[in-house]
Amino acid sequence: MLFRQLFDHESYTYTYLLADEVSREAVLIDPVDKDVPLYLRLLEELDLKLIAALDTHVHADHITGLGLLQDATECATMVGFEGEVDCASEGLEDGKQIHVGSITLNTLFTPGHTDDSFCFTVDDGGVQYLFSGDTLLIRGTGRTDFQNGDPEQLYDSLHNKLLTLPTATLVYPAHDYKGWTVSTIDEEIRTNPRLEPASKAAFVELMNNLDLPNPKMMDVAVPANRACGKRATP
Amino acid sequence: MLFRQLFDHESYTYTYLLADEVSREAVLIDPVDKDVPLYLRLLEELDLKLIAALDTHVHADHITGLGLLQDATECATMVGFEGEVDCASEGLEDGKQIHVGSITLNTLFTPGHTDDSFCFTVDDGGVQYLFSGDTLLIRGTGRTDFQNGDPEQLYDSLHNKLLTLPTATLVYPAHDYKGWTVSTIDEEIRTNPRLEPASKAAFVELMNNLDLPNPKMMDVAVPANRACGKRATP
Repeated sequence: MLFRQLFDHESYTYTYLLADEVSREAVLIDPVDKDVPLYLRLLEELDLKLIAALDTHVHADHITGLGLLQDATECATMVGFEGEVDCASEGLEDGKQIHVGSITLNTLFTPGHTDDSFCFTVDDGGVQYLFSGDTLLIRGTGRTDFQNGDPEQLYDSLHNKLLTLPTATLVYPAHDYKGWTVSTIDEEIRTNPRLEPASKAAFVELMNNLDLPNPKMMDVAVPANRACGKRATP
Repeated sequence: MLFRQLFDHESYTYTYLLADEVSREAVLIDPVDKDVPLYLRLLEELDLKLIAALDTHVHADHITGLGLLQDATECATMVGFEGEVDCASEGLEDGKQIHVGSITLNTLFTPGHTDDSFCFTVDDGGVQYLFSGDTLLIRGTGRTDFQNGDPEQLYDSLHNKLLTLPTATLVYPAHDYKGWTVSTIDEEIRTNPRLEPASKAAFVELMNNLDLPNPKMMDVAVPANRACGKRATP
Protein backbone atom coordinates (compact mmCIF):
# COMPACT_ATOMS: atom_id res chain seq x y z
CA MET A 1 0.00 0.00 0.00
CA LEU A 2 1.25 3.44 -0.87
CA PHE A 3 0.65 5.57 2.21
CA ARG A 4 1.21 9.29 2.78
CA GLN A 5 0.46 11.43 5.78
CA LEU A 6 -0.06 15.07 4.79
CA PHE A 7 -0.24 18.02 7.18
CA ASP A 8 -2.17 21.27 6.98
CA HIS A 9 -0.20 23.91 8.88
CA GLU A 10 -3.13 26.25 9.42
CA SER A 11 -5.58 23.87 11.09
CA TYR A 12 -3.08 21.22 12.25
CA THR A 13 -5.06 18.66 10.27
CA TYR A 14 -3.64 15.37 9.05
CA THR A 15 -4.92 14.14 5.72
CA TYR A 16 -4.16 10.60 4.58
CA LEU A 17 -3.54 9.28 1.10
CA LEU A 18 -3.84 5.51 0.65
CA ALA A 19 -3.35 3.88 -2.73
CA ASP A 20 -3.09 0.48 -4.35
CA GLU A 21 0.34 0.42 -6.01
CA VAL A 22 -0.88 -1.93 -8.75
CA SER A 23 -4.30 -0.58 -9.76
CA ARG A 24 -3.17 3.01 -8.87
CA GLU A 25 -6.55 3.69 -7.22
CA ALA A 26 -6.41 6.07 -4.27
CA VAL A 27 -8.50 7.48 -1.43
CA LEU A 28 -8.03 10.64 0.65
CA ILE A 29 -9.21 10.81 4.25
CA ASP A 30 -10.03 14.25 5.72
CA PRO A 31 -8.79 16.49 2.89
CA VAL A 32 -8.59 20.27 3.51
CA ASP A 33 -9.98 22.61 0.83
CA LYS A 34 -6.99 24.94 0.53
CA ASP A 35 -4.60 22.01 0.09
CA VAL A 36 -6.55 20.46 -2.80
CA PRO A 37 -4.05 21.80 -5.41
CA LEU A 38 -1.25 20.03 -3.51
CA TYR A 39 -3.23 16.77 -3.39
CA LEU A 40 -3.94 16.96 -7.11
CA ARG A 41 -0.25 17.58 -7.80
CA LEU A 42 0.77 14.62 -5.66
CA LEU A 43 -1.83 12.33 -7.25
CA GLU A 44 -0.52 13.27 -10.68
CA GLU A 45 3.15 12.89 -9.69
CA LEU A 46 2.43 9.46 -8.23
CA ASP A 47 0.26 8.49 -11.21
CA LEU A 48 -2.78 7.77 -9.02
CA LYS A 49 -6.50 7.96 -9.71
CA LEU A 50 -8.57 9.30 -6.81
CA ILE A 51 -11.70 7.20 -6.51
CA ALA A 52 -12.97 8.37 -3.11
CA ALA A 53 -12.59 11.14 -0.54
CA LEU A 54 -13.88 10.62 3.00
CA ASP A 55 -14.47 12.83 6.01
CA THR A 56 -14.31 11.20 9.42
CA HIS A 57 -16.93 13.77 10.53
CA VAL A 58 -18.17 17.26 9.74
CA HIS A 59 -15.20 19.28 10.98
CA ALA A 60 -15.43 22.52 12.91
CA ASP A 61 -11.86 23.69 12.44
CA HIS A 62 -11.20 23.55 8.72
CA ILE A 63 -13.08 23.44 5.43
CA THR A 64 -13.33 20.05 3.78
CA GLY A 65 -11.83 19.47 0.35
CA LEU A 66 -14.51 16.95 -0.66
CA GLY A 67 -16.41 19.26 -3.00
CA LEU A 68 -13.32 20.55 -4.82
CA LEU A 69 -11.94 17.03 -5.18
CA GLN A 70 -15.26 15.76 -6.54
CA ASP A 71 -15.27 18.56 -9.11
CA ALA A 72 -11.66 17.90 -10.12
CA THR A 73 -11.66 14.10 -10.19
CA GLU A 74 -15.28 12.87 -10.07
CA CYS A 75 -14.33 10.80 -7.01
CA ALA A 76 -16.97 9.43 -4.68
CA THR A 77 -17.42 11.60 -1.57
CA MET A 78 -18.42 9.94 1.68
CA VAL A 79 -19.51 11.43 4.98
CA GLY A 80 -21.36 10.08 7.98
CA PHE A 81 -24.84 11.28 7.13
CA GLU A 82 -25.03 12.04 3.45
CA GLY A 83 -28.33 13.89 3.86
CA GLU A 84 -26.59 16.60 5.85
CA VAL A 85 -23.81 17.36 3.35
CA ASP A 86 -24.68 18.72 -0.10
CA CYS A 87 -22.12 16.98 -2.30
CA ALA A 88 -21.85 13.66 -0.50
CA SER A 89 -22.34 10.77 -2.86
CA GLU A 90 -22.49 8.11 -0.13
CA GLY A 91 -23.12 7.85 3.57
CA LEU A 92 -21.05 5.81 6.00
CA GLU A 93 -22.30 3.16 8.38
CA ASP A 94 -20.78 0.80 10.88
CA GLY A 95 -19.29 -2.22 9.12
CA LYS A 96 -19.28 -0.65 5.64
CA GLN A 97 -16.33 -1.80 3.56
CA ILE A 98 -14.77 0.66 1.14
CA HIS A 99 -12.64 -0.95 -1.57
CA VAL A 100 -9.77 0.97 -3.16
CA GLY A 101 -8.10 -1.48 -5.47
CA SER A 102 -6.91 -4.27 -3.20
CA ILE A 103 -7.17 -2.08 -0.09
CA THR A 104 -10.21 -2.45 2.14
CA LEU A 105 -11.20 0.25 4.59
CA ASN A 106 -13.46 -1.03 7.36
CA THR A 107 -15.79 1.59 8.77
CA LEU A 108 -16.43 1.94 12.50
CA PHE A 109 -19.25 4.17 13.75
CA THR A 110 -17.71 5.99 16.72
CA PRO A 111 -20.07 8.76 17.87
CA GLY A 112 -19.17 10.95 20.82
CA HIS A 113 -16.95 13.76 19.55
CA THR A 114 -19.78 14.46 17.14
CA ASP A 115 -22.85 12.40 16.31
CA ASP A 116 -21.44 11.69 12.84
CA SER A 117 -17.93 10.50 13.76
CA PHE A 118 -16.50 7.47 11.99
CA CYS A 119 -13.11 5.74 12.07
CA PHE A 120 -11.48 3.47 9.50
CA THR A 121 -9.21 0.45 9.88
CA VAL A 122 -6.96 -1.02 7.19
CA ASP A 123 -4.89 -4.20 7.26
CA ASP A 124 -1.85 -3.86 5.00
CA GLY A 125 -0.13 -7.23 4.95
CA GLY A 126 -0.51 -7.65 8.68
CA VAL A 127 0.22 -4.03 9.62
CA GLN A 128 -2.94 -2.58 11.13
CA TYR A 129 -3.84 1.07 10.62
CA LEU A 130 -6.53 3.03 12.46
CA PHE A 131 -7.58 6.39 11.06
CA SER A 132 -9.12 7.70 14.23
CA GLY A 133 -10.45 11.12 13.24
CA ASP A 134 -11.02 13.22 16.35
CA THR A 135 -12.32 10.24 18.32
CA LEU A 136 -8.85 9.21 19.54
CA LEU A 137 -5.98 11.68 19.37
CA ILE A 138 -2.34 11.13 20.41
CA ARG A 139 -2.58 11.54 24.19
CA GLY A 140 -6.06 13.00 23.87
CA THR A 141 -9.56 12.71 22.43
CA GLY A 142 -11.92 15.05 20.66
CA ARG A 143 -14.12 17.28 22.82
CA THR A 144 -17.83 16.51 23.27
CA ASP A 145 -19.46 19.90 23.83
CA PHE A 146 -20.86 20.73 20.38
CA GLN A 147 -22.26 19.16 17.19
CA ASN A 148 -24.28 16.71 19.31
CA GLY A 149 -21.15 15.48 21.04
CA ASP A 150 -21.82 13.11 23.92
CA PRO A 151 -19.21 11.97 26.46
CA GLU A 152 -21.07 8.73 27.24
CA GLN A 153 -21.07 7.82 23.56
CA LEU A 154 -17.40 8.78 23.25
CA TYR A 155 -16.52 6.54 26.20
CA ASP A 156 -18.30 3.62 24.55
CA SER A 157 -16.73 4.31 21.16
CA LEU A 158 -13.26 4.41 22.71
CA HIS A 159 -13.53 1.49 25.08
CA ASN A 160 -15.81 -0.84 23.13
CA LYS A 161 -14.49 -0.21 19.62
CA LEU A 162 -11.05 1.40 19.35
CA LEU A 163 -9.26 0.03 22.40
CA THR A 164 -10.29 -3.52 21.53
CA LEU A 165 -8.26 -3.36 18.29
CA PRO A 166 -4.93 -5.24 18.22
CA THR A 167 -2.56 -3.34 20.53
CA ALA A 168 0.08 -2.86 17.81
CA THR A 169 -2.45 -1.02 15.59
CA LEU A 170 -0.96 2.26 14.32
CA VAL A 171 -3.14 5.21 15.32
CA TYR A 172 -3.29 8.02 12.77
CA PRO A 173 -5.46 10.87 14.07
CA ALA A 174 -7.04 13.81 12.25
CA HIS A 175 -4.98 16.31 14.22
CA ASP A 176 -1.97 16.75 16.41
CA TYR A 177 -0.92 20.07 17.90
CA LYS A 178 2.51 19.11 19.27
CA GLY A 179 4.10 17.75 16.08
CA TRP A 180 3.58 14.05 16.77
CA THR A 181 2.51 11.98 13.80
CA VAL A 182 1.47 8.51 14.96
CA SER A 183 0.85 6.37 18.02
CA THR A 184 -0.36 2.85 18.75
CA ILE A 185 -3.35 1.46 20.64
CA ASP A 186 -0.99 0.01 23.25
CA GLU A 187 0.78 3.33 23.70
CA GLU A 188 -2.50 5.23 24.10
CA ILE A 189 -3.84 2.73 26.63
CA ARG A 190 -0.69 3.23 28.69
CA THR A 191 -0.28 7.01 28.38
CA ASN A 192 -3.45 8.83 27.27
CA PRO A 193 -4.86 10.85 30.19
CA ARG A 194 -8.38 10.72 28.68
CA LEU A 195 -8.29 6.94 28.99
CA GLU A 196 -7.36 7.00 32.67
CA PRO A 197 -10.81 7.51 34.26
CA ALA A 198 -11.79 4.15 35.68
CA SER A 199 -15.52 4.54 35.00
CA LYS A 200 -17.79 6.04 32.40
CA ALA A 201 -19.14 8.43 35.04
CA ALA A 202 -15.62 9.72 35.81
CA PHE A 203 -14.94 10.21 32.09
CA VAL A 204 -18.22 12.12 31.63
CA GLU A 205 -17.32 14.32 34.60
CA LEU A 206 -13.88 15.02 33.08
CA MET A 207 -15.29 15.84 29.64
CA ASN A 208 -18.10 18.03 30.99
CA ASN A 209 -15.63 20.21 32.87
CA LEU A 210 -13.05 20.93 30.16
CA ASP A 211 -14.39 24.49 29.66
CA LEU A 212 -12.79 24.92 26.22
CA PRO A 213 -13.28 27.93 23.92
CA ASN A 214 -15.06 27.23 20.63
CA PRO A 215 -12.78 26.50 17.64
CA LYS A 216 -11.88 29.73 15.86
CA MET A 217 -13.36 28.62 12.55
CA MET A 218 -16.42 26.82 13.91
CA ASP A 219 -19.10 29.33 12.81
CA VAL A 220 -17.68 29.31 9.29
CA ALA A 221 -16.49 25.73 9.02
CA VAL A 222 -19.56 23.74 10.06
CA PRO A 223 -22.01 25.34 7.60
CA ALA A 224 -19.33 25.37 4.87
CA ASN A 225 -18.64 21.69 5.41
CA ARG A 226 -22.32 20.87 5.20
CA ALA A 227 -22.08 22.52 1.76
CA CYS A 228 -19.17 20.16 1.04
CA GLY A 229 -16.56 22.88 1.38
CA LYS A 230 -17.75 24.95 -1.53
CA ARG A 231 -17.59 28.52 -0.27
CA ALA A 232 -19.83 31.24 -1.66
CA THR A 233 -16.78 33.34 -2.51
CA PRO A 234 -13.70 31.28 -3.32
CA MET B 1 12.49 -0.63 14.74
CA LEU B 2 10.39 1.89 16.57
CA PHE B 3 10.27 4.95 14.35
CA ARG B 4 8.72 8.35 14.93
CA GLN B 5 8.72 11.46 12.78
CA LEU B 6 8.27 14.60 14.88
CA PHE B 7 7.54 18.08 13.53
CA ASP B 8 8.52 21.51 14.82
CA HIS B 9 5.82 23.96 13.75
CA GLU B 10 8.00 27.06 14.11
CA SER B 11 10.92 26.08 11.88
CA TYR B 12 9.18 23.34 9.86
CA THR B 13 11.87 20.92 11.03
CA TYR B 14 11.44 17.15 11.10
CA THR B 15 13.16 15.35 13.94
CA TYR B 16 13.43 11.56 13.88
CA LEU B 17 13.35 9.11 16.74
CA LEU B 18 14.67 5.61 16.02
CA ALA B 19 14.79 2.95 18.69
CA ASP B 20 15.52 -0.72 19.15
CA GLU B 21 12.32 -2.23 20.56
CA VAL B 22 14.24 -4.89 22.48
CA SER B 23 17.21 -3.04 24.02
CA ARG B 24 15.12 0.20 24.24
CA GLU B 25 18.11 2.25 23.04
CA ALA B 26 17.22 5.29 20.97
CA VAL B 27 18.73 8.02 18.80
CA LEU B 28 17.33 11.42 17.79
CA ILE B 29 18.25 13.02 14.46
CA ASP B 30 18.05 16.83 14.19
CA PRO B 31 16.38 17.65 17.52
CA VAL B 32 15.12 21.24 18.09
CA ASP B 33 15.95 22.91 21.42
CA LYS B 34 12.46 24.13 22.31
CA ASP B 35 10.97 20.68 21.70
CA VAL B 36 13.38 18.89 24.06
CA PRO B 37 10.74 18.64 26.83
CA LEU B 38 8.44 16.86 24.36
CA TYR B 39 11.21 14.46 23.31
CA LEU B 40 12.02 13.66 26.94
CA ARG B 41 8.33 13.02 27.62
CA LEU B 42 8.06 10.70 24.63
CA LEU B 43 11.25 8.83 25.54
CA GLU B 44 9.87 8.27 29.03
CA GLU B 45 6.41 7.23 27.81
CA LEU B 46 7.96 4.75 25.39
CA ASP B 47 10.45 3.53 28.01
CA LEU B 48 13.46 4.38 25.84
CA LYS B 49 17.01 5.34 26.72
CA LEU B 50 18.53 8.03 24.48
CA ILE B 51 22.09 7.05 23.68
CA ALA B 52 22.85 9.50 20.88
CA ALA B 53 21.64 12.72 19.27
CA LEU B 54 22.87 13.73 15.82
CA ASP B 55 22.69 16.82 13.68
CA THR B 56 22.82 16.36 9.91
CA HIS B 57 24.59 19.75 9.77
CA VAL B 58 24.87 23.03 11.66
CA HIS B 59 21.43 24.45 10.98
CA ALA B 60 20.70 28.08 10.15
CA ASP B 61 16.96 28.02 10.82
CA HIS B 62 16.54 26.55 14.29
CA ILE B 63 18.51 25.94 17.46
CA THR B 64 19.73 22.39 17.98
CA GLY B 65 18.59 20.38 20.98
CA LEU B 66 21.90 18.50 21.28
CA GLY B 67 23.20 20.40 24.30
CA LEU B 68 19.97 20.18 26.29
CA LEU B 69 19.60 16.47 25.49
CA GLN B 70 23.20 15.80 26.52
CA ASP B 71 22.56 17.57 29.84
CA ALA B 72 19.31 15.67 30.42
CA THR B 73 20.34 12.18 29.32
CA GLU B 74 24.15 12.07 28.97
CA CYS B 75 23.66 10.88 25.39
CA ALA B 76 26.48 11.07 22.86
CA THR B 77 26.19 14.14 20.60
CA MET B 78 27.45 13.91 17.06
CA VAL B 79 27.96 16.59 14.42
CA GLY B 80 29.98 16.80 11.24
CA PHE B 81 33.04 18.57 12.58
CA GLU B 82 33.18 18.18 16.32
CA GLY B 83 35.84 20.87 16.63
CA GLU B 84 33.32 23.48 15.51
CA VAL B 85 30.55 22.65 17.99
CA ASP B 86 31.18 23.04 21.74
CA CYS B 87 29.29 20.08 23.18
CA ALA B 88 29.84 17.55 20.44
CA SER B 89 31.20 14.32 21.81
CA GLU B 90 31.96 12.79 18.40
CA GLY B 91 32.46 13.85 14.82
CA LEU B 92 30.91 12.21 11.79
CA GLU B 93 32.72 10.88 8.76
CA ASP B 94 31.78 9.08 5.58
CA GLY B 95 31.25 5.39 6.25
CA LYS B 96 30.97 5.73 10.03
CA GLN B 97 28.53 3.23 11.52
CA ILE B 98 26.47 4.30 14.53
CA HIS B 99 24.99 1.42 16.50
CA VAL B 100 21.77 1.90 18.47
CA GLY B 101 20.94 -1.51 19.84
CA SER B 102 20.45 -3.67 16.77
CA ILE B 103 19.95 -0.64 14.49
CA THR B 104 22.90 0.53 12.40
CA LEU B 105 23.01 4.03 10.96
CA ASN B 106 25.41 4.34 8.02
CA THR B 107 26.87 7.80 7.61
CA LEU B 108 27.23 9.45 4.20
CA PHE B 109 29.29 12.63 3.83
CA THR B 110 27.17 14.80 1.51
CA PRO B 111 28.65 18.32 1.38
CA GLY B 112 27.07 21.00 -0.77
CA HIS B 113 24.21 22.56 1.20
CA THR B 114 26.86 23.22 3.83
CA ASP B 115 30.40 21.90 4.11
CA ASP B 116 29.40 19.81 7.13
CA SER B 117 26.30 18.05 5.72
CA PHE B 118 25.82 14.36 6.42
CA CYS B 119 23.03 11.90 5.66
CA PHE B 120 22.20 8.57 7.29
CA THR B 121 20.81 5.33 5.91
CA VAL B 122 19.15 2.56 7.90
CA ASP B 123 18.02 -0.89 6.76
CA ASP B 124 15.10 -2.10 8.88
CA GLY B 125 14.35 -5.64 7.80
CA GLY B 126 14.69 -4.77 4.13
CA VAL B 127 12.96 -1.38 4.35
CA GLN B 128 15.55 1.27 3.50
CA TYR B 129 15.44 4.68 5.16
CA LEU B 130 17.41 7.76 4.14
CA PHE B 131 17.59 10.67 6.56
CA SER B 132 18.56 13.26 4.02
CA GLY B 133 18.97 16.43 6.09
CA ASP B 134 18.81 19.48 3.82
CA THR B 135 20.78 17.73 1.07
CA LEU B 136 17.66 16.23 -0.53
CA LEU B 137 14.23 17.65 0.25
CA ILE B 138 10.84 16.49 -1.07
CA ARG B 139 10.79 18.12 -4.53
CA GLY B 140 13.77 20.28 -3.60
CA THR B 141 17.27 20.50 -2.17
CA GLY B 142 18.98 22.72 0.33
CA ARG B 143 20.41 26.02 -0.93
CA THR B 144 24.16 26.47 -1.44
CA ASP B 145 24.77 30.16 -0.83
CA PHE B 146 26.06 30.24 2.75
CA GLN B 147 27.98 28.19 5.37
CA ASN B 148 30.49 27.15 2.70
CA GLY B 149 27.73 25.74 0.52
CA ASP B 150 28.88 24.65 -2.91
CA PRO B 151 26.57 23.70 -5.80
CA GLU B 152 29.21 21.49 -7.47
CA GLN B 153 29.62 19.51 -4.27
CA LEU B 154 25.84 19.29 -3.82
CA TYR B 155 25.47 17.94 -7.37
CA ASP B 156 28.04 15.24 -6.64
CA SER B 157 26.49 14.39 -3.27
CA LEU B 158 23.06 14.03 -4.86
CA HIS B 159 24.00 12.18 -8.02
CA ASN B 160 26.91 10.06 -6.78
CA LYS B 161 25.62 9.19 -3.31
CA LEU B 162 21.90 9.65 -2.71
CA LEU B 163 20.41 8.86 -6.10
CA THR B 164 22.40 5.64 -6.32
CA LEU B 165 20.55 4.23 -3.29
CA PRO B 166 17.85 1.58 -3.97
CA THR B 167 14.96 3.39 -5.66
CA ALA B 168 12.41 2.28 -3.06
CA THR B 169 14.44 3.94 -0.26
CA LEU B 170 12.18 6.13 1.88
CA VAL B 171 13.44 9.72 1.95
CA TYR B 172 12.93 11.53 5.25
CA PRO B 173 14.21 15.12 5.00
CA ALA B 174 15.01 17.66 7.73
CA HIS B 175 12.26 19.99 6.53
CA ASP B 176 9.14 20.28 4.47
CA TYR B 177 7.18 23.46 4.02
CA LYS B 178 4.09 22.10 2.27
CA GLY B 179 3.06 19.44 4.82
CA TRP B 180 4.52 16.42 3.03
CA THR B 181 6.23 13.90 5.25
CA VAL B 182 8.13 11.38 3.12
CA SER B 183 9.17 10.54 -0.42
CA THR B 184 11.25 7.89 -2.14
CA ILE B 185 14.42 8.02 -4.25
CA ASP B 186 12.42 6.87 -7.28
CA GLU B 187 9.80 9.56 -6.76
CA GLU B 188 12.42 12.31 -6.40
CA ILE B 189 14.27 11.17 -9.51
CA ARG B 190 11.01 11.42 -11.46
CA THR B 191 9.62 14.67 -10.01
CA ASN B 192 12.23 16.83 -8.25
CA PRO B 193 12.92 19.96 -10.34
CA ARG B 194 16.40 20.32 -8.78
CA LEU B 195 17.32 16.95 -10.26
CA GLU B 196 16.24 17.92 -13.77
CA PRO B 197 19.35 19.79 -14.97
CA ALA B 198 21.15 17.43 -17.33
CA SER B 199 24.66 18.59 -16.39
CA LYS B 200 26.56 19.76 -13.36
CA ALA B 201 27.08 23.12 -15.04
CA ALA B 202 23.33 23.59 -15.52
CA PHE B 203 22.71 22.69 -11.87
CA VAL B 204 25.36 25.17 -10.71
CA GLU B 205 23.76 27.85 -12.87
CA LEU B 206 20.34 27.09 -11.36
CA MET B 207 21.62 27.16 -7.78
CA ASN B 208 23.67 30.32 -8.26
CA ASN B 209 20.62 32.21 -9.47
CA LEU B 210 18.06 31.34 -6.80
CA ASP B 211 18.41 34.78 -5.17
CA LEU B 212 16.91 33.68 -1.83
CA PRO B 213 16.67 35.83 1.30
CA ASN B 214 18.70 34.67 4.29
CA PRO B 215 16.86 32.44 6.78
CA LYS B 216 15.18 34.57 9.45
CA MET B 217 17.03 32.94 12.31
CA MET B 218 20.42 32.55 10.60
CA ASP B 219 22.34 35.21 12.55
CA VAL B 220 21.15 33.72 15.83
CA ALA B 221 21.00 30.05 14.91
CA VAL B 222 24.45 29.39 13.43
CA PRO B 223 26.47 30.75 16.39
CA ALA B 224 24.01 29.20 18.86
CA ASN B 225 24.33 25.83 17.16
CA ARG B 226 28.10 26.02 17.29
CA ALA B 227 27.57 26.38 21.05
CA CYS B 228 25.45 23.23 20.86
CA GLY B 229 22.18 25.11 21.26
CA LYS B 230 22.88 26.40 24.73
CA ARG B 231 21.69 29.99 24.62
CA ALA B 232 23.17 32.64 26.91
CA THR B 233 19.71 33.40 28.30
CA PRO B 234 17.40 30.40 28.31
